[in-house]
Amino acid sequence: MKLLLINPNSSPLMTEGIAEAARRVAAPGTEIVATQPSFGPASIEGHYDDVFGAAGVLEQLRLAALPAPDAVVIACFGDPGLDAAREATAAPVLGTAEAAFHVASMLATGFSVVTTMTRTCVIAEHLVMKYGFERRCRGIHGTDIPVLALETPDEAVVARVEAAAREALARDRSGAIVLGCAGMAGLCGTLQQRLGVPVIDGVAAAVKLAEGLVGLGLRTSKLGDYAEPLPKLYRGWAGPLGW
Amino acid sequence: MKLLLINPNSSPLMTEGIAEAARRVAAPGTEIVATQPSFGPASIEGHYDDVFGAAGVLEQLRLAALPAPDAVVIACFGDPGLDAAREATAAPVLGTAEAAFHVASMLATGFSVVTTMTRTCVIAEHLVMKYGFERRCRGIHGTDIPVLALETPDEAVVARVEAAAREALARDRSGAIVLGCAGMAGLCGTLQQRLGVPVIDGVAAAVKLAEGLVGLGLRTSKLGDYAEPLPKLYRGWAGPLGW
Amino acid sequence: MKLLLINPNSSPLMTEGIAEAARRVAAPGTEIVATQPSFGPASIEGHYDDVFGAAGVLEQLRLAALPAPDAVVIACFGDPGLDAAREATAAPVLGTAEAAFHVASMLATGFSVVTTMTRTCVIAEHLVMKYGFERRCRGIHGTDIPVLALETPDEAVVARVEAAAREALARDRSGAIVLGCAGMAGLCGTLQQRLGVPVIDGVAAAVKLAEGLVGLGLRTSKLGDYAEPLPKLYRGWAGPLGW
Amino acid sequence: MKLLLINPNSSPLMTEGIAEAARRVAAPGTEIVATQPSFGPASIEGHYDDVFGAAGVLEQLRLAALPAPDAVVIACFGDPGLDAAREATAAPVLGTAEAAFHVASMLATGFSVVTTMTRTCVIAEHLVMKYGFERRCRGIHGTDIPVLALETPDEAVVARVEAAAREALARDRSGAIVLGCAGMAGLCGTLQQRLGVPVIDGVAAAVKLAEGLVGLGLRTSKLGDYAEPLPKLYRGWAGPLGW
Amino acid sequence: MKLLLINPNSSPLMTEGIAEAARRVAAPGTEIVATQPSFGPASIEGHYDDVFGAAGVLEQLRLAALPAPDAVVIACFGDPGLDAAREATAAPVLGTAEAAFHVASMLATGFSVVTTMTRTCVIAEHLVMKYGFERRCRGIHGTDIPVLALETPDEAVVARVEAAAREALARDRSGAIVLGCAGMAGLCGTLQQRLGVPVIDGVAAAVKLAEGLVGLGLRTSKLGDYAEPLPKLYRGWAGPLGW
Amino acid sequence: MKLLLINPNSSPLMTEGIAEAARRVAAPGTEIVATQPSFGPASIEGHYDDVFGAAGVLEQLRLAALPAPDAVVIACFGDPGLDAAREATAAPVLGTAEAAFHVASMLATGFSVVTTMTRTCVIAEHLVMKYGFERRCRGIHGTDIPVLALETPDEAVVARVEAAAREALARDRSGAIVLGCAGMAGLCGTLQQRLGVPVIDGVAAAVKLAEGLVGLGLRTSKLGDYAEPLPKLYRGWAGPLGW
Repeated sequence: MKLLLINPNSSPLMTEGIAEAARRVAAPGTEIVATQPSFGPASIEGHYDDVFGAAGVLEQLRLAALPAPDAVVIACFGDPGLDAAREATAAPVLGTAEAAFHVASMLATGFSVVTTMTRTCVIAEHLVMKYGFERRCRGIHGTDIPVLALETPDEAVVARVEAAAREALARDRSGAIVLGCAGMAGLCGTLQQRLGVPVIDGVAAAVKLAEGLVGLGLRTSKLGDYAEPLPKLYRGWAGPLGW
Repeated sequence: MKLLLINPNSSPLMTEGIAEAARRVAAPGTEIVATQPSFGPASIEGHYDDVFGAAGVLEQLRLAALPAPDAVVIACFGDPGLDAAREATAAPVLGTAEAAFHVASMLATGFSVVTTMTRTCVIAEHLVMKYGFERRCRGIHGTDIPVLALETPDEAVVARVEAAAREALARDRSGAIVLGCAGMAGLCGTLQQRLGVPVIDGVAAAVKLAEGLVGLGLRTSKLGDYAEPLPKLYRGWAGPLGW
Repeated sequence: MKLLLINPNSSPLMTEGIAEAARRVAAPGTEIVATQPSFGPASIEGHYDDVFGAAGVLEQLRLAALPAPDAVVIACFGDPGLDAAREATAAPVLGTAEAAFHVASMLATGFSVVTTMTRTCVIAEHLVMKYGFERRCRGIHGTDIPVLALETPDEAVVARVEAAAREALARDRSGAIVLGCAGMAGLCGTLQQRLGVPVIDGVAAAVKLAEGLVGLGLRTSKLGDYAEPLPKLYRGWAGPLGW
Repeated sequence: MKLLLINPNSSPLMTEGIAEAARRVAAPGTEIVATQPSFGPASIEGHYDDVFGAAGVLEQLRLAALPAPDAVVIACFGDPGLDAAREATAAPVLGTAEAAFHVASMLATGFSVVTTMTRTCVIAEHLVMKYGFERRCRGIHGTDIPVLALETPDEAVVARVEAAAREALARDRSGAIVLGCAGMAGLCGTLQQRLGVPVIDGVAAAVKLAEGLVGLGLRTSKLGDYAEPLPKLYRGWAGPLGW
Repeated sequence: MKLLLINPNSSPLMTEGIAEAARRVAAPGTEIVATQPSFGPASIEGHYDDVFGAAGVLEQLRLAALPAPDAVVIACFGDPGLDAAREATAAPVLGTAEAAFHVASMLATGFSVVTTMTRTCVIAEHLVMKYGFERRCRGIHGTDIPVLALETPDEAVVARVEAAAREALARDRSGAIVLGCAGMAGLCGTLQQRLGVPVIDGVAAAVKLAEGLVGLGLRTSKLGDYAEPLPKLYRGWAGPLGW
Repeated sequence: MKLLLINPNSSPLMTEGIAEAARRVAAPGTEIVATQPSFGPASIEGHYDDVFGAAGVLEQLRLAALPAPDAVVIACFGDPGLDAAREATAAPVLGTAEAAFHVASMLATGFSVVTTMTRTCVIAEHLVMKYGFERRCRGIHGTDIPVLALETPDEAVVARVEAAAREALARDRSGAIVLGCAGMAGLCGTLQQRLGVPVIDGVAAAVKLAEGLVGLGLRTSKLGDYAEPLPKLYRGWAGPLGW
């Protein structure tokens, strides 16, 4: 199967890192095709960036090379453009936060999210509520570690995330940790070993869930809410993206 | 005060119609400056269109002529880009659905939404939940009237919306009707007269709420969740929109 | 327009203070007519006082001088008699807590309430739930400052409220403060300046929302739940208040 | 034990009927002392009436003859003045709707309310939400039978309530019926026999729950929210009711 | 009336202790018949034990000596087998946690649970949610006191529970304490005296609620969800327990 | 990997049917080891049966042949014993309803459940609420088709399930169907083809989710709520199952 992995920010370097993480967990028959938008923010750290990331996801999905992907993963914890992408394709589409929340709730009665910027906690909160994990997600915690520091994390960074996770487990009475940033994927194994609880990276989770849906022969529902976009005029730079 | 009214779709004709509706309810000192994005869909009828509408709202807000607006209204029932717009300005920003829900809940213990495409009901449902009106909003009803038919509605169209509203009032045990599409503004007066209950057009509601917030000297909070976007590189056509 | 401002407690001095605050934000054409019940508690600090305040609100609404008011504001944070008042008039009726919650939720993703007596927090909690602001309201905090101390607040009182607000903003991760007592209106400007976030006085908010509703030509729904009270015998002192 | 049964409306005849129903289920050692306010509406059929009923409950509780009651029951389905009454006494206080909901939820996974005026359904809805029975209460149904018709119900009235109950059981998939009006107590036995499911009269339920609480030696908490009212000036006719 | 009190664990000694506590509050005409399963765990401290406790409850209910009980109480805070027991008999069945939550919510606007093992808090949380007490229950606190230490509690144990309760009352802003373990019944009186708030033992509460339901002539609904089990083959040791 | 598939009822024939369905979707490297308890009901059609099914699941898990399974699936829509099984093993454990709900919510904004006995709808409702799918699950519908009729379904049975599914899709405005009974697995393909929407069989979904979790190297959290059962005496037939 061909899995289209879309990094919603415009940094090719980050795309490569995420693609590697995805390939590490992918099944033998899964081809990971990774890409990023031709426009928009170099990283996504708030609602403003998120809007452009969503438009970028749709650009890449609309313009994706043939053959059409068998599944799509949106590799950013805010799940930008997820509902829209499900209109734009019948292939299963998975979001990063969505996948992480689903997986965590199969392993523990409660989980905590440890993320980067505190100001993005509200985005995670909205997703938790939208997906129905209000009772499973017992806390969302910002560490205010700069995203760049995550690219080549030294022990100080690892220790800081580990400390935040330990405090979250104790204070929230949680049994698992969800990493709230695609850039944290590299810390997943180390943290799981040190903490002794499941530590979930959403991109990896999304890849495996996507494989599972394809294995079940299931595709996005085209009845009603996720039906194909209605054909209409798109103006300006977005002209080629209209339906 | 200067009120920037952004129509998230790219149709100048619809912008003009909405601006007129806004001017009809605006206070004497309120200047309505209406605009629409340079790109994107001619109308918004699903999640896919909505994403481009959100990016268009931010384009117009970012590139707005000086002096800066005192308040901003996003004139589309899906409230595209609302959270992001609140990051991008300290002026109060009101969404159409948001404003309509707030106003309806001050006039009746329960209200019903009557909208156009059934497939957009799920967008209204998400907003109802996000804003906390699950108990006040007792039903969301699609009429599947084409948006174009609303531009110059004949009696058949009015009668169809009226019938849907009557059924909603009875079945939902509601006391007020929210019109779920900015294009329905022209029907508001007629419907209110025929139905004998409050009928709320969200754009008009947003204009008056915006005037009220400005009158109270209140502006969007810049502490935490709605702080200014972080400065960073924006690539491609979005280059000038980065912070 | 004529706005009837009802102070539910029986203290004329407090009525005057609240009326002044209302007049400060009222639009030029808005006439504020302020009043208080002929009976009941000198202040409202619990459920017991609240019941008499509610009856007093209805007395003043029922016996109000002609012409009938265009809008009504109930100037007490517990919103006593709000639903009943909406039965008793077709003019829009706004409560103080209700107005503050609506306004705060347009300015921040989360707000905190700072109030006087800790024992009244549960009343605010019930209103938060009834109106649907459970997710927007992130905390309700009592300061146990005596209401009398608020009438002519010295710096010590201001500092105490400010400290409570600062702690609430940090602990609740909130972006705005709602003042949980009509008597705190005088502190609003000072606190907003010191805290650098929106600080909302519910009476002022209610006045502007009422003006907005009147400007939209909207009145309380008389279909169903808020229909006029049914005519019937009222006994004893309440005889003249029956319908 | 002495159980003070307060009928919140001002009709002595209705007080007597309710007292009889209470005495039928009371344990041998329970003395039922029934009373009604000296003022207010002859029946309670909306929020407006409810406010005066609440004040009347407090009057009777405040002025109750010695010895102090061991328990208090508020005999009206809207539970007027319940929280305030709990401030005003340390004896357990039970509301009619509250008691009915608690009892019904011990007998069936879901119950339906059948009441008189459709316009009072919203009051029952608020109580359901306040007490936490949103999931147990699967429907609230008005029959619009005049309350007077319930005083000496003929077979036509019984048949109408029975039909409404049957439809509720089927449509709501419920297993029990709560009678939503103290005046329906007389129909309880007949309906239970005909319907073959538990039919709950709230006044009877409240009496037995009150006996149970007294038997457990439990009294209303005086810590915090239900602490005694604070002493203060009460003006006008309410002067003697101040604390 | 004959009240069948089933201790879901297999310890006859604990059955006796619970039966004594039940008899202390039972009305003169109530005969307490106490029993425990012929199999399963000596105590219930997690989901695994809970499953066997549930099966044991059904064994005792199915094999109970004639005459059939008038009411049934399941004497363990996890309410094992409650729904199943309601299928298996038309007599009212009360759970321990269920009864305690109902009673506490009639005495205070909020209550806290103080229990033994922290790992069982999640079971209490599930019950709180299932029964609808999310807003009334403001906190669940484990003390990690060994259950055995509760059988003959010395002052150190009492002091530890008291300290946990005091902290819960303050931190949760609660007005009542629910003891989260049937084995804590003996501490109830002492704690209530020391804390000055209602302290609720669920077994005692269940006995009084059961007496109340019997006094009202109410039985478990046999319409729909709690209908008798369908007759079918039961294999193995459970053969005699099939319907 | 070795996947232990436990059929909670005691019918070996049904075990075989479910195992076949599981093997059809299993990945090449997945060995399905299917089993059923040595005791209990021949089918699970209510809370009473469910309790014995839960105990049976634990028996099979406790006594499972070595090597220990890499993952466990409980093949019954009521998910009997799920939390307990997660205490009893560190391997991932998936429930049938749980898996179906997770998968459906990745494919549609809303889904409907079509099940067999109407009386089991309440069990599905409890699971929907426990797992947090209240907003995604828009309806649960009983068909009252006898389970035996599902073993070798003729066209009449298929047509009946199809009709129920069509009505659910329309009335609930859903986009996907969840089959609410493990015995319906055989209809999955036919129904999906006829209805044109995703039709989800929970056992197949659970197998793929389990493979995904194993592929991610994730195991059930042993911190806190799902820690191993505490060692203690188990009496009677359950003696060998104690920890």
